[in-house]
Amino acid sequence: MSAPGFTGGRLDRADRLRHDPDALAAATDWRARLLVLGPGYEPQVGDDGRLGWTSIADAPEDAELVLLGLADDRAHFAAITGESGGAPFRSPRLLAALGLMAEGEAATWGAARSVLDWHARHRFCGNCGTGTAPFRAGWGRKCPNCATEHFPRVDPVVIMIAEHDGRALLGRQAAWPQGRYSALAGFLEPGESIEEAVAREIGEEAGVRVRDVRYVASQPWPFPAQLMIACVAQAEDDAITLDRHELEDAIWVPRDEVRAVLAGEPGAFVAPPPYAIAHTLLTRWAA
Amino acid sequence: MSAPGFTGGRLDRADRLRHDPDALAAATDWRARLLVLGPGYEPQVGDDGRLGWTSIADAPEDAELVLLGLADDRAHFAAITGESGGAPFRSPRLLAALGLMAEGEAATWGAARSVLDWHARHRFCGNCGTGTAPFRAGWGRKCPNCATEHFPRVDPVVIMIAEHDGRALLGRQAAWPQGRYSALAGFLEPGESIEEAVAREIGEEAGVRVRDVRYVASQPWPFPAQLMIACVAQAEDDAITLDRHELEDAIWVPRDEVRAVLAGEPGAFVAPPPYAIAHTLLTRWAA
Repeated sequence: MSAPGFTGGRLDRADRLRHDPDALAAATDWRARLLVLGPGYEPQVGDDGRLGWTSIADAPEDAELVLLGLADDRAHFAAITGESGGAPFRSPRLLAALGLMAEGEAATWGAARSVLDWHARHRFCGNCGTGTAPFRAGWGRKCPNCATEHFPRVDPVVIMIAEHDGRALLGRQAAWPQGRYSALAGFLEPGESIEEAVAREIGEEAGVRVRDVRYVASQPWPFPAQLMIACVAQAEDDAITLDRHELEDAIWVPRDEVRAVLAGEPGAFVAPPPYAIAHTLLTRWAA
Repeated sequence: MSAPGFTGGRLDRADRLRHDPDALAAATDWRARLLVLGPGYEPQVGDDGRLGWTSIADAPEDAELVLLGLADDRAHFAAITGESGGAPFRSPRLLAALGLMAEGEAATWGAARSVLDWHARHRFCGNCGTGTAPFRAGWGRKCPNCATEHFPRVDPVVIMIAEHDGRALLGRQAAWPQGRYSALAGFLEPGESIEEAVAREIGEEAGVRVRDVRYVASQPWPFPAQLMIACVAQAEDDAITLDRHELEDAIWVPRDEVRAVLAGEPGAFVAPPPYAIAHTLLTRWAA
């Protein structure tokens, strides 16, 4: 059973250093490392599948740094660039780089991307509109006017298949690559549990009523900062009523066929990529 | 098995109305209802345990409304007051009101509280500092300057017990009521899965290494807008190293004793209240 994509990072987040400026300063010595990132937060990936790092000395003099964590007794940082989410979202080059990364490297890169992008898009205080500044080693921003502390967002998303008579409900959005079908998904809202969000989303998108929601796995998704929560639910019946604003199509796929497609055989649909938790979810459901 | 607190709300969130101003206007007729809220978002709870509602006509003329959902063929709203999170957080009166609510009512109130409080604390655009205005029937805010759309936050929190040799690891914070012990908890961060956050938090707070994290249940927690994700993990050993910034104490409690305390017998600790998912978690672990 392979781990979900974007998990398994090797850095110790070292929360204690975020609260101890002296210890943080001591750890920011000449041995500290800086994550190499290009435009669109694009990583440098070596032939060994490892992320590229450089000396902290290469950071711009006034750079604001995020402490990604400790490894090999060295502090590892990323520099806040102010580059906005308007940068290329998931470029073909980036997707290729993800495919080259060794286990755990995508987790480190994803955490950096999520936090850097949050800084870029949250430079002002939501409470009073004043410009804010990073604190806690880059794991928050504080308002100099009203003293409100802001912390990076993580947006929970439920992603799920409904199951009926040995078949899985898969949907496709119009913008997806040709033939791609995947699990349904949607943002969890204030005031609902995971189980309630799963039932609401399947109901809204496909008109299918479900019960017995079962948690399967989770992954962070760094575009920009989702927590993907994968579940399976039992459908009451198999009649589909599509919400065409959300989905272009939805189909019931037998377990054998899901298994065959995941094994690389041609079938009724093109599977989601291995680093997406939909792939993990379908793999575990089909097993 | 009782459902977690703040779940089981009866309103249909009616997402389609948020995207259809004409349909929303049609639903905002004289029959529409407005949630009665006092200072600190305090609800009015009737003798039947139901939330108090009044006519939409009682809303201030310039009130900005959040569509909570549909029930009995009527639209149900709450008014954005701009009251900030500085209001009494969890007053004794509020906790008493929660105890009086019929099933599902706390879910409706909690969703309203989370969204209203988010509006109050996010009146300005994080991207450019300009004042924003509600849109999508109160389920977002939009910036008139840079057009950025903002949506209510839901902050995922992991809450968990480590298990070792038939005993559960419980901790207490210094500010809690005397004798109260509960599951450990902490915010999930960008770039980690639920399972990774559980292991990190138990390691940080109690110095206990765990494996085999298992999801148990979830609940929304409206103070101000957390998604509580309850898990059980297997501890590698039972040596505790406390982080005294986080916890005042941590103890291993045998299953029998947890069961007895939940049944109301005096024991080594005072249990968390029934509407907290820690109560659900302990109940399911002890069963």
